[in-house]
Amino acid sequence: SEYIAPCDCRRAFISGFDGSAGTAIITEQHAAMWTDGRYFLQAAHQMDNNWTLMKMGLKDTPTQEDWLVSVLPEGSKVGVDPFIIPADQWKRMSKALRSAGHDLVPVKENLIDTIWTDCPQRPCKPLITLDLSYTGVSWRDKIVALRSKMAERKVLWFVVTALDEVAWLFNLRGSDVEYNPVFFAYAVIGMNTIRLFIDGDRMMDPAVREHLQLDSTLEPEFKIQVLPYGSILSELQAVGAGLSPKEKVWLSDKASYALTEAVPKAYRYLTPYTPICIAKAVKNTSETEGMRRAHIKDAVALCELFNWLEKEVPKGTVTEIMAADKAEEFRSQQKDFVELSFATISSTGPNGAIIHYKPVPETNRTLSVNEIYLLDSGAQYKDGTTDVTRTMHFGTPSAYEKECFTYVLKGHIAVSAAIFPNGTKGHLLDSFARSALWDCGLDYLHGTGHGVGSFLNVHEGPCGISYKTFADEPLEAGMIVSDEPGYYEDGSFGIRIENVVLVIPAETKYNFKNRGSLTFEPLTLVPIQTKMIDVNLLTQKECNWVNDYHQKCREVIGAELERQGRQEALQWLIRETEPLIRIQ
Amino acid sequence: SEYIAPCDCRRAFISGFDGSAGTAIITEQHAAMWTDGRYFLQAAHQMDNNWTLMKMGLKDTPTQEDWLVSVLPEGSKVGVDPFIIPADQWKRMSKALRSAGHDLVPVKENLIDTIWTDCPQRPCKPLITLDLSYTGVSWRDKIVALRSKMAERKVLWFVVTALDEVAWLFNLRGSDVEYNPVFFAYAVIGMNTIRLFIDGDRMMDPAVREHLQLDSTLEPEFKIQVLPYGSILSELQAVGAGLSPKEKVWLSDKASYALTEAVPKAYRYLTPYTPICIAKAVKNTSETEGMRRAHIKDAVALCELFNWLEKEVPKGTVTEIMAADKAEEFRSQQKDFVELSFATISSTGPNGAIIHYKPVPETNRTLSVNEIYLLDSGAQYKDGTTDVTRTMHFGTPSAYEKECFTYVLKGHIAVSAAIFPNGTKGHLLDSFARSALWDCGLDYLHGTGHGVGSFLNVHEGPCGISYKTFADEPLEAGMIVSDEPGYYEDGSFGIRIENVVLVIPAETKYNFKNRGSLTFEPLTLVPIQTKMIDVNLLTQKECNWVNDYHQKCREVIGAELERQGRQEALQWLIRETEPLIRIQ
Repeated sequence: SEYIAPCDCRRAFISGFDGSAGTAIITEQHAAMWTDGRYFLQAAHQMDNNWTLMKMGLKDTPTQEDWLVSVLPEGSKVGVDPFIIPADQWKRMSKALRSAGHDLVPVKENLIDTIWTDCPQRPCKPLITLDLSYTGVSWRDKIVALRSKMAERKVLWFVVTALDEVAWLFNLRGSDVEYNPVFFAYAVIGMNTIRLFIDGDRMMDPAVREHLQLDSTLEPEFKIQVLPYGSILSELQAVGAGLSPKEKVWLSDKASYALTEAVPKAYRYLTPYTPICIAKAVKNTSETEGMRRAHIKDAVALCELFNWLEKEVPKGTVTEIMAADKAEEFRSQQKDFVELSFATISSTGPNGAIIHYKPVPETNRTLSVNEIYLLDSGAQYKDGTTDVTRTMHFGTPSAYEKECFTYVLKGHIAVSAAIFPNGTKGHLLDSFARSALWDCGLDYLHGTGHGVGSFLNVHEGPCGISYKTFADEPLEAGMIVSDEPGYYEDGSFGIRIENVVLVIPAETKYNFKNRGSLTFEPLTLVPIQTKMIDVNLLTQKECNWVNDYHQKCREVIGAELERQGRQEALQWLIRETEPLIRIQ
Repeated sequence: SEYIAPCDCRRAFISGFDGSAGTAIITEQHAAMWTDGRYFLQAAHQMDNNWTLMKMGLKDTPTQEDWLVSVLPEGSKVGVDPFIIPADQWKRMSKALRSAGHDLVPVKENLIDTIWTDCPQRPCKPLITLDLSYTGVSWRDKIVALRSKMAERKVLWFVVTALDEVAWLFNLRGSDVEYNPVFFAYAVIGMNTIRLFIDGDRMMDPAVREHLQLDSTLEPEFKIQVLPYGSILSELQAVGAGLSPKEKVWLSDKASYALTEAVPKAYRYLTPYTPICIAKAVKNTSETEGMRRAHIKDAVALCELFNWLEKEVPKGTVTEIMAADKAEEFRSQQKDFVELSFATISSTGPNGAIIHYKPVPETNRTLSVNEIYLLDSGAQYKDGTTDVTRTMHFGTPSAYEKECFTYVLKGHIAVSAAIFPNGTKGHLLDSFARSALWDCGLDYLHGTGHGVGSFLNVHEGPCGISYKTFADEPLEAGMIVSDEPGYYEDGSFGIRIENVVLVIPAETKYNFKNRGSLTFEPLTLVPIQTKMIDVNLLTQKECNWVNDYHQKCREVIGAELERQGRQEALQWLIRETEPLIRIQ
């Protein structure tokens, strides 16, 4: 999982390093930590001298396997908790070690847990049930659809291991980890059985019992057996033991080694994307309507925030942390607000150039009329998930800052307005976002977009827009992704313009091979600061796009600001959505 | 190899099917032929009822492995000539068969050869030596550079298996197969030895002996040992047998199973692209100058052709075959012309929509003033290889034809004028070529560009421009690729605009991370028919591109037409390069 619970922060416990990515390997003589460029400084700062920092991505940094082979005495055993290593990674590492005469072995009890005496408990928070008005499809119908996919692939069992897939399948949400509204659970779906592995008294909640129809008389194939979270392994082993040839069990190839091994190899059917992952990505009408509502409320909050910032920043009293807190405050005033969808990136001046920046007291900078401010933030509402970035100047931007902003905007529009055939993979659109920057020798070193869940994880597969050609699935109508090109100048500023956009059918003049075309509709409706735009760098088409977009912001968000009686923010919105005029 | 010698056309001998792609599998009971969509009709037509046609790419067509497993009695052996199956393909097939209880076995003598009594002899044509003015680098220096790459990777031996790599390494050319100026040979390069495996009396040619310095007193590490072509296997086995641990032999992973197996597995070092493939792709100044000269001569021939067609087509006497022959005739008048670089695609009207069309008497159509004509052709000159496509109308094109042509032109320009960072892979540019077509719901079902050799294969790796993300290497200055978007309407017409372009450094306003930028310079300088362009669909920038391009055609090709005294073609060129005027 991208976000984890405190009880799973074992690396931070043993090393002090609490960045979001890193692998610790400890031998009798050595302790080494692999992490990527985002965290070189932080890891060096947080770890003591006992640790060797392994800077991934640098030429001379050994891989974990190569390092192990170089330091281990002959015939060593390397232990790993089989529940926290994906099966494909186990396979790779195991092979490398074996060919050097060592062994990778699963450790029964996690060795950190045995010494972590004050380890926090695994969270077990109450569940939220989502009715049909939010989900569009009942969990029963989702099970039926899943079983039909299982029948197509001739598998008898499907193991749900990703937390957001369990939540989506049962139309339940939780709050066991921050930002992602999920809960600790597994599920095993057979053609006639449903087993849900979940702990705590959450299943005693009458609303949950009714939602899952636990006390109703149901056809047996829809009767949910509730089992303890920890019993998944033995239950899965029992399933595996009962199989006969040609009876397969479907697992994600990212499932843990422990669960994968529970099924004998001959009976495993592994795929990079599960049928749930793919179904979940294509939002139905109830979900897209919910996402629209969530984005309207989110825009209301941001109009309030930006109006407030415009007044407060010149006083020199607003810090990055305060701005982030204020954004959360305005969001929390909106209906069905649950929590933030990720840690707010609130950054001004040089901090904006740190792509994964999160303000902390040591770095907290005061917003001013002399620096660019970048806010990348989002929230979970019961009807949808948001993620929006706006870059603003509260004084007078320089010509160069406007020039860079305008190139980024051109890239944003190029993706947002792109028309492309059905079946196109997102990575084929990535260069559109960069073309205007490339023309001037500029670029940004991150992907252009990621899938977005519907009141679920803000980052989800199986689609995205990136120059890295991972095995993304083709875009289809109903998918929701972000469109977020940027430009970053180390030590000076960062620019990013991000909307969440919905894939929709496009009307085209012709229709080659009857394939049909797609395009994007922005769900995010927050003004893009026109003060930052050098209108002369826009084509007429781009200028029209901005004006149409702002017209829509004014209409849709204006009506909601009006309804909520937020007159001052409404006046701000009207000012900020004045049409651009391009002199030919 | 893409093109093969008559003695290697074993599939055509056994089945009658002579398309460029296909695999025949023959069991005691069955005979089956796998081929792709280009050849379904041709294969069905050429093969008799004993054959089952396996249409690759269709959902219900079994793979070769699945089919074998379904028809073979238990414990069968499947034989294959190990010299004509790549090692990676062997591995895949062998694994699939083994898991079903069968065995893939190498056959010592090719079974077709044992029954093909009148099999033609393997060609053994004289060699052409290329001096420094063509190659820029002597074969000695190429060996030195190769050995330094070998030292970097800590390999002791490198096996040259691709015919164009042998030719490039020794600065030799041949004519053993049509279109590709190569000769049958292998080479094995050690740190102190050079072994060239080649047959015939070609090594008796004094020019070749001098070129290779066979009779000179040389440092031993540059002394070339000439050995019979057929002795490669035993020589390589001897090399393999003499190795000690950590002494590696470098082979392409596309080398034949026979040669790969000759080296014990522990000593093999396999890569998708060899150091020769990568070095060969980056042309030096002598090569790019040669390519420029070749393209000037080629343009002269095409100006003559198009001027001739313009006069002759209205008479209704010119067929596709005649036009192709005339193109060859004009090319053959140019200095250092060697042969065509591929079979000319000369197609009019509906034939133009068949992407890999080659006119034959049964399909030969007469050019007319009512149909679009597409000519995709190229030649081998001693100084370079050409490949150019022009689409023309000799009467009045319809508004729709002009519209489609203009979208294709916009795509062509978008790639040709693209500026992109050093290190960018070609596949990231593919969507630029399609964007204008996509906007109107159109597309084309082939890649946008391929690498082009320097008086070598017209299709070469390791770079290209395609939506299929094969493992292409990044583009770098000096590489040469084609830029050839198209649009095809089944039963009506085909449009393609193809230039060969050179990757060159680009000047940009800024220089992010000091990476530097690249762009393309067209080497092909043949007018793009302005009659086919709907100027109102072009942006001013695109219009300027066309005018600048035509200005360059007029200057460079005009001067050469003048020099060659080709006044009539010169007048045609001047007419065809009149600037476009775009009314705002």
